[in-house]
Parts: sequence; C-alpha cells; structure tokens
Amino acid sequence: MSKTSSYAAQSATSPLAPFSIERREPGPRDIEIEVLYCGVCHSDLHMVRNEWKSSLYPVVPGHEIVGRVSRVGAEVKNFKAGDLAAAGCLVDSCRTCPSCKEGLEQYCEGTFTLTYGSPDKDFPGKSTYGGYSGKIVIDQDFVLHVPSNLDLAGTAPLLCAGITLYSPLRHWKAGPGKKVGIVGLGGLGHMGVKFAHAFGAQTVLFTTSASKIEDGKRLGADEVVVSKNASEMRKHTESFDLIVNTVAVSHDLDPFTTLLKRDGTLCLVGAPEHPHPSPNISNIIFKRRQIAGSLIGGIRETQEMLDFCGKHGITSDVEVIPIQKINEAYERMLRSDVRYRFVIDNASLSAS
Amino acid sequence: MSKTSSYAAQSATSPLAPFSIERREPGPRDIEIEVLYCGVCHSDLHMVRNEWKSSLYPVVPGHEIVGRVSRVGAEVKNFKAGDLAAAGCLVDSCRTCPSCKEGLEQYCEGTFTLTYGSPDKDFPGKSTYGGYSGKIVIDQDFVLHVPSNLDLAGTAPLLCAGITLYSPLRHWKAGPGKKVGIVGLGGLGHMGVKFAHAFGAQTVLFTTSASKIEDGKRLGADEVVVSKNASEMRKHTESFDLIVNTVAVSHDLDPFTTLLKRDGTLCLVGAPEHPHPSPNISNIIFKRRQIAGSLIGGIRETQEMLDFCGKHGITSDVEVIPIQKINEAYERMLRSDVRYRFVIDNASLSAS
Repeated sequence: MSKTSSYAAQSATSPLAPFSIERREPGPRDIEIEVLYCGVCHSDLHMVRNEWKSSLYPVVPGHEIVGRVSRVGAEVKNFKAGDLAAAGCLVDSCRTCPSCKEGLEQYCEGTFTLTYGSPDKDFPGKSTYGGYSGKIVIDQDFVLHVPSNLDLAGTAPLLCAGITLYSPLRHWKAGPGKKVGIVGLGGLGHMGVKFAHAFGAQTVLFTTSASKIEDGKRLGADEVVVSKNASEMRKHTESFDLIVNTVAVSHDLDPFTTLLKRDGTLCLVGAPEHPHPSPNISNIIFKRRQIAGSLIGGIRETQEMLDFCGKHGITSDVEVIPIQKINEAYERMLRSDVRYRFVIDNASLSAS
Repeated sequence: MSKTSSYAAQSATSPLAPFSIERREPGPRDIEIEVLYCGVCHSDLHMVRNEWKSSLYPVVPGHEIVGRVSRVGAEVKNFKAGDLAAAGCLVDSCRTCPSCKEGLEQYCEGTFTLTYGSPDKDFPGKSTYGGYSGKIVIDQDFVLHVPSNLDLAGTAPLLCAGITLYSPLRHWKAGPGKKVGIVGLGGLGHMGVKFAHAFGAQTVLFTTSASKIEDGKRLGADEVVVSKNASEMRKHTESFDLIVNTVAVSHDLDPFTTLLKRDGTLCLVGAPEHPHPSPNISNIIFKRRQIAGSLIGGIRETQEMLDFCGKHGITSDVEVIPIQKINEAYERMLRSDVRYRFVIDNASLSAS
C-alpha cells in the first residue's frame, strides 16, 4: 500500500478538501498511474452532494483521468513505466456476461466497479477513490493508451464526456448523408458537435441560448438552431436521422422527436432529476421513431475514440484549474460558466 | 356512380344506422369490390364518437375489408372479376415521397387517404366511406390478394389488427433465438401472439387477467405472465429482445422496459388518450434500450403477411355478427367482451 494526496468530500454538505488516501500495491495485472489531469464531470458534483442518494463518504471524485504510468505488474505487456495512460468511468466489470464479452462493459449484466464510489474490494468497507488524487492503481484491462500528439488536459474529458457522445453517434451511424442533431452545448454537447462533424454528418446544434451560435459553428456545427424559437424548429421537421440530447434537466422532448425522420432516433444521454413531460406517443408511432438511451462506452470503443481523436486532433475545450479551485469550479459549473469543461491540473495537489 | 347500402353514424351521439352511399364508377386503374366481411376495429368506435376530434359526418367506418372483385378497370392486370380481394387502412398515398417509394405508405410524408374519414377527391366536400358497406372502389395499388385457403371472416382483421403486429415483429426481427413479449390479449395482442409464435420466437404474453392464461397458451404463447404480479414480472428482468405493447390506455411502461435486455425495444402500437406516466429515463440509458412506435404496415408488407398467413393457416379469432348488431358490438368491445375481434357479415346489409 502507498499513500497519496487527494481532495475528498467528507459529507454531503462539506466542501472538497485535502485528504490522504491509500492505494493498493500494483498486482501482477495492475498499472499504477500518476494522475496528470482529471476532468470535472457534473456527476462528480452529484456524488459529492449525494444527489443520487448513493454516496459513501469520503467521496474522492474524478473519472476523466489522464496520466503517466509509474509502475506496472509482472504480467502487464501493453504498458510500461513512462507511458501515457488514461482511465474513464469504470475500473472493473464482471468480464463474463454477454455485454462484457462484447466489450460493452458499461452495460455489464453483473456488477461493474466505478472508478469512484463503488465498493473497493481491496479495502473492505471503503469505496473506490477517483482521479482527484495523485495516483491510481487500475487493472490493465481498464487502462487506455493516449495518442502522443494530443493536449493532455484536453484529452481528460474524452474519457467520460467524449465517449458518452462518441458511442451513440457510432451506434446510430452518424456519418456522411446523415443529419444529426446535438441538443445542448456543454461538456457533453460540445464533444457531440465535434464528433458528428468529424464523422461527416450534417451537424446541427440545438441550444436555448443565442449567445452560443457562434461557438457552435466554430466547434463544427453546420447550423445552430435556437430551440426556443418554434418557427426555426419547424423548418427542420422530419429531417433528422439522429438527435443526441445531452440536456439532463426536465424538458419537453416532443419538439425534438417531431424533427426526426421516419425511423429516426432521439437518444438521451442524461437522466433528469425530475421526469421529462411524458412524451407524445403518436409522435413516435406515426413515424416509427424511437426514444433511446446510451451510457458512456465500453473499453474497446473508448480506445477506438482516443485513436480517432489522435488521428483527427480532437480534444475537449477546457479550462484548466488547480485543485484548490474545485469548489468554486462546481459553483461555476452549476451556472454553466465554463467553456466547456474544467480540468484539474493534478500537479497542484502537491501544493495543498 | 352507383349506390350501395351502408351503416353510418350521422353525429357523434347517434348510433350507426342504415345509410345509402354512392361509389365512383371504376376508373381504368380501379377495382370494385363486393364487401363480404369487415372487421370491427376499436378506431371505428373512436371515429364514430368523434373521440379523436377529427370526424366528418356521416362516418361509414370499416378498414378490415375482405370481398370479391365485381368489376375492374381497363388497365387492371392483377385482378379480375370473381377474385378474392382485401383492403386495409389506406386506399391511397402520395406515391412519390421516400416512404411511399420504399413501400411504407403508412409513413407517407405527403398525404395518405384513409379508407374512411379522409377527404374524398371523387366526392368533393365528402369524406371517404369504409367497409361497413355493400361495395367499395379502390385503386389497384391498394388492393390485396387473399390466399384461397383462409377463412374469409377470420382474414378481415388481418388487414389492420394483423398487420399492426406483423410489421413491428418483422421490423425488430422476432424469430428463432429471440424472446418476444406481447402486452395485452385483445384484437391486436392475439395476432401478436400468433405471429411471434409462427416466426419461431420464444413468445410471452403479458395480461392483467389470469383468466386469459389458458387462451394465451392456446394461441401460441410459451408463457403467460400476469403483469400485475410483480414477482412473476421480476423473473423476466433483462431477458426480452422485443416487447410489443398493444395496450392503448395510460399505464406505467417501466415494468416492461425493465424486462428488456440491453438494446431491447419496447414498441408501442397504440396511443393512449391520456399520457402514460413519464418513462424512467435511467431505465433506458443504462441498457441502451429504446421505446419505439409502429403504425400498421405498408401495402407490400400487408401482402407478404397475407401470403404468410395462407402458408401457415393463420387467421384472427373472430365472432361474426350481422351489421344490425354493430351498436351492441361496440358496447361489448368497450367491455373487452369479444374473443378477439368482431367481424361483420356484410351479406346482412341486404336485410336492413
């Protein structure tokens, strides 16, 4: 076991503060990673504040991890000390169910282990601790390679925000000849615009705020539609193959399903705290449309995404902060005052 | 023009009663059909009583039509006088949009003409009149062939109830190795059980009424689950590839989405008058499930279904009534007091 510094919440009402944690010694299949950058995901805030009523304290958040390998176990072949490495939302899964065998560990039918907040089998009674920390030890099967040409801070959010959009866009075949909508321009949405554009789809961003039009276009949208403007929306009736909706607050889905072609899909990637208004079923029936959901992505697909990003020079637009600013960053995140993802420079941990 | 007898509703509050209507002379591409049997669909009742707020009176319902060709236009090649013929919910569509060109006229992006209740271009100011009548004249492209071995009364409901289940079961690939659920054992549901079974899928019927267990099995269900029984439902968690839900009254969809595997589909074929409770979105996201809809079927697929039924000896379970009993049949239909579809013997029209 070795100690490392972290930032943790000790209760639902306490701010994140310095906290010393222990990491296991790397086993034969383990990789120890010195965390260089960790993205700040909205779910970190939910977990810190126990908004999903499942948090076990202390909570050390962070599942958008980029770092450098410091040690590897004897059986590890694909990584060596000094390599760049990344990890996302999962650090283990059952590995035996059909979903795991298909490389879709995020849909594991057994039990998966979240990077933070799951029971930690190495430290009975404790939960796993995430990337707001100096180092982390992870089984090699859940560690990703990072293309050497990418900005490391901008790479961190790919591990959750990025793959959450990449996966449904691939699954529902966004590409040339397809018209794809992305609803919401935040940490997730801005990655959706970049990927849909990179895949060659006609890309339309939906935003409630006219102030984001220019940025949407800069990020790759062919068109930006202010979704509060009904007449602008109407112009796109029955024209989309796929709309990926990143907005996780309760809102009416019907104006978006109406924009789908026959057989089109509205894919939700965020679950609202309060239910959306019940969707109009005729809207679905009369065009054989579907309302679907998608959850992050599997390990294989996450590697595929990182490789794609390396090839196309895609990273997240980030604002790098020292860990000491994390509580302030949460408040700003709640006000959507970030373009488009906070990323912690973990070197700052040593200053705590 | 020629006159024919029918049963019509003259207002939302008047019962169906004898009414003389006119049919156009068959044009070069038209087929005149002597109606032998017409199925009684729940939507007939909705239209008669203006429950969808779109009815134009008089309303002559009926879109599950089986009959015999009496006359054909000069250009008609595929039918001749004396042939059996059938027609369903549509008698025309735009024929030029992508959906029409793909043989999916039910999703016509232009305007389709319903068998009854649409504006009738041959009789300006009037609406089309359906199969509760002695004869009907329809463009050859919307007329189906009826396999000669099938019971004609039992064939009529295939044209709406049958195709409404056949189409989604085919679209979402019900077949060997798939586990398929059908929710509700009525006019639609009983056809779903028959088709899912005939396609070789493991077929499970969900019903709220234990009294239907035996009948469900007789119709082809491998298992019947009383959906009010939570522990029985739980046994099927995450096991279904497809569930087709025929229940058009507001109810909680979550107990059914929970039963879907990853990537499974809950397909709704009935729109409720009052919205379903808003579905749980996490339920969809965490298994990449989808809630979809499906509407009847196209002409090509309807013919494919009739041929399939001919080959496999499939018809609807029906109770044949004279047209004089139609108002009573509506009351019984509201009480689900029919196993499983009323069919009018149109010969009875001559006694009115």
